[in-house]
Amino acid sequence: MASNKKYETVFSLSRLADYIGAEISGDPECQISGISTIQNAKEGEITFLSNPCYKKHLKTTKASAVIISRAESCGYQSNYLICSDPYLAYAKISQLLYPLLLPNSDEIHETAVIADNVQISSPVKIGSGVTIEENTVIGERTAINAGAFIGKGVSIGEKVTIYPNVTILDGVVIGDDCIIHSGAVIGADGLGFARSKEGWQKIAQIGKVRIGSNVEIGANTTIDRGAIGDTVIADGVKLDNLIQIAHNVKIGRNTAIAASVGIAGSTEVGENCTIAGKVGIIGHLEICADCHITAMSLVTKSIKTPGVYSSSMPALPDKVWHKVVAKIRRLAKKT
Amino acid sequence: MASNKKYETVFSLSRLADYIGAEISGDPECQISGISTIQNAKEGEITFLSNPCYKKHLKTTKASAVIISRAESCGYQSNYLICSDPYLAYAKISQLLYPLLLPNSDEIHETAVIADNVQISSPVKIGSGVTIEENTVIGERTAINAGAFIGKGVSIGEKVTIYPNVTILDGVVIGDDCIIHSGAVIGADGLGFARSKEGWQKIAQIGKVRIGSNVEIGANTTIDRGAIGDTVIADGVKLDNLIQIAHNVKIGRNTAIAASVGIAGSTEVGENCTIAGKVGIIGHLEICADCHITAMSLVTKSIKTPGVYSSSMPALPDKVWHKVVAKIRRLAKKT
Amino acid sequence: MASNKKYETVFSLSRLADYIGAEISGDPECQISGISTIQNAKEGEITFLSNPCYKKHLKTTKASAVIISRAESCGYQSNYLICSDPYLAYAKISQLLYPLLLPNSDEIHETAVIADNVQISSPVKIGSGVTIEENTVIGERTAINAGAFIGKGVSIGEKVTIYPNVTILDGVVIGDDCIIHSGAVIGADGLGFARSKEGWQKIAQIGKVRIGSNVEIGANTTIDRGAIGDTVIADGVKLDNLIQIAHNVKIGRNTAIAASVGIAGSTEVGENCTIAGKVGIIGHLEICADCHITAMSLVTKSIKTPGVYSSSMPALPDKVWHKVVAKIRRLAKKT
Repeated sequence: MASNKKYETVFSLSRLADYIGAEISGDPECQISGISTIQNAKEGEITFLSNPCYKKHLKTTKASAVIISRAESCGYQSNYLICSDPYLAYAKISQLLYPLLLPNSDEIHETAVIADNVQISSPVKIGSGVTIEENTVIGERTAINAGAFIGKGVSIGEKVTIYPNVTILDGVVIGDDCIIHSGAVIGADGLGFARSKEGWQKIAQIGKVRIGSNVEIGANTTIDRGAIGDTVIADGVKLDNLIQIAHNVKIGRNTAIAASVGIAGSTEVGENCTIAGKVGIIGHLEICADCHITAMSLVTKSIKTPGVYSSSMPALPDKVWHKVVAKIRRLAKKT
Repeated sequence: MASNKKYETVFSLSRLADYIGAEISGDPECQISGISTIQNAKEGEITFLSNPCYKKHLKTTKASAVIISRAESCGYQSNYLICSDPYLAYAKISQLLYPLLLPNSDEIHETAVIADNVQISSPVKIGSGVTIEENTVIGERTAINAGAFIGKGVSIGEKVTIYPNVTILDGVVIGDDCIIHSGAVIGADGLGFARSKEGWQKIAQIGKVRIGSNVEIGANTTIDRGAIGDTVIADGVKLDNLIQIAHNVKIGRNTAIAASVGIAGSTEVGENCTIAGKVGIIGHLEICADCHITAMSLVTKSIKTPGVYSSSMPALPDKVWHKVVAKIRRLAKKT
Repeated sequence: MASNKKYETVFSLSRLADYIGAEISGDPECQISGISTIQNAKEGEITFLSNPCYKKHLKTTKASAVIISRAESCGYQSNYLICSDPYLAYAKISQLLYPLLLPNSDEIHETAVIADNVQISSPVKIGSGVTIEENTVIGERTAINAGAFIGKGVSIGEKVTIYPNVTILDGVVIGDDCIIHSGAVIGADGLGFARSKEGWQKIAQIGKVRIGSNVEIGANTTIDRGAIGDTVIADGVKLDNLIQIAHNVKIGRNTAIAASVGIAGSTEVGENCTIAGKVGIIGHLEICADCHITAMSLVTKSIKTPGVYSSSMPALPDKVWHKVVAKIRRLAKKT
């Protein structure tokens, strides 16, 4: 929701340099009010050069300043900030210029339905049509936006942004500085059933979901509560959209997961992993820290060695691929 | 929501023939009030013969008329409409008999929460529990159904149907004649982070989502706003359910995408493509116009030649497949 | 939402034995108020031994009683219940100790918007911000939780639990004892279009969704209405999260489907199938009863013989996998 400039923020180049610890070249009083790409930047905007492919645009960019590495800056004549990681510097400056707005005063909409014994810190925002059920605790500067549902006995920390139409079910625990995007469902029952002659018998799902601090959860992502014991998302984890986190999964610190990934029950993913889009990980596995799984791969065994893992098959022209499939099938017939 | 006949619409066969430009055989005054399959049609209903497999039912169908090609109609004695593409004719007649109901008069529910400076044309429907935030513009004959959230600075065209519990975030632009199904989230932040020693630094997502006219977006589909610059869905695009469109993706005119597809950041898909279910397309690619990608394929490189592309592996009995996997793995050991 | 003990339920071991038909060893008056894992159980809790890997914890568990098979119980000295299927017994006892709370008295929130001619049995719960449109029928002891939308002409049976922010569209039929989790969308239009020179022509989706009894539907799962005729989910079906069920699909009795599966239009899945996570099944197929499809497999042909089917490729270290892919591609060039 950072799409529009919420209030006018203008910074001098020297202020930005201080903020990211960069060396300035050019006019330190140059005024910056926005960020854009190197091709589209206008006067008053800063841009960055991270991917060398775009270096050709340096000469023609209309940006008032460029974030750049020392090596790439060689020979460049305009205003710039030199830093070792221009992409990271861009991220930090984007936060300064387009801050996530947190509540500075109480804003509780009259249509919100809040149970009597809810404990809400101040300042806080509770949007229109929000429901908050009993025994829930909400930290200061947290915003619960329109149409969100917060169940019983939930604990939400400080400076958390919950976007419209999120569902947080009973007993979920969320740390500080989290962002939960629209349509996410946290704490639904996992798929827990025992087979019987008369069909599936439901297993009551009595665990919780515990989410750390600095966690971001994408739109329409689902995180199921534990069957017994909890589903745990550690500090700094970033989850994209439409991800399924099954019951009793544990995700380690600072692991980032792209869209449409599914992680089955009781699997534990270590710290600092990156999991590309559409990956599947079956249940009851342990994935060690510092693994990268490539897009649409299926992990069927625990991984004990950090590294890159893959089973994804790149698309080919259909006629070629048909031959491949035919050959592969013939393999099974050979001894 | 077209499930129930909203009002009684009855057309003579001659009226239907005029509407689709078909030649009549039989009684032009035959009255038609509904559509059904060739096996299940009752009196007063029209059916169609598109797939020759169903020709055997022609003799026994109770339909009052049949939409049929000239070739297939040979020898058939009842009422029929001859046209070159019976399936397309069926589509058009279905729209006539079961029209999507658009507002004809203002219907703004008392529980809707609408900011002061929202610009709403007339007639319009705003359902119960809808929230519309400031600086938003809504065109005439548009329906925003119950529980939908429309953020700040959003622009929605004419004759748009937004189903219940949709979320449209700040700054999203939607053209005319669009349909957005329940649970869709348009304009959430993309997964934009830069790595730092202290964990992931969020990159403010400051672009918008721009959606053309005649676009349909399926239930629980997510379309992220651009990081810098916009995510763009062109006119006539049809998206099914549970699709992920990442930041800065561009989808060309009249491209249709089936359910559970994921398209990663900054990829551009051309016009008139058809993408089958569960396909993944990685980021920063260009897919040219007129491509078809088969179900569950993974596109890892740009495609420059129109055609069919695939990497999908059809399921086999597990024992056979196990042998295939073992043989495939052994391949890697050979020189 | 069964996460918190809603009211204090304590049972004697003899009562539990009667309930599941087990033989008691030890103190029949031992009082049990909860369930936990064998490692984490505390006094007053019962646990179960289903997976032999956990047998080593039998000696040290603090559980007041253990559900166990006769074979495994040999030599165990504490309180236990002997039964042939400890996992099933655990499921049944979990339902007793953590019952799903159904309405015992009318609880209709003042902010709910209910059309005049809705037929609601008593007792019933209608939560805050719920919308129920005309001609809908809701059975007794059913709970429609906050923010849910129920369209026109919907029929919902008895003892159904609809979690917050669910969307049930016009004409959907739901049996008794169902559970529908948050964010699920039942009855949206399927992807039905006919190609024309001017782009895609929408085919009115005029069928319904008919859901049997004892069905559970996961969070953010989507079930589309039929194009003509209905989409059908039979009794006892269990669907996990983020599943796509396309128009006119039929799912047979007691079939269980894990998260992120997609089933394309008009496919029929038989009874007692189990479909693992991320499977895709293309349209117009018939899958016979008693099939198991492994995770991330793609079913492209009808299956007529019960059994296990697979096309899933387990991930390998990326360097090894690259060699595999290269070799596979070379296969296509050989004659």
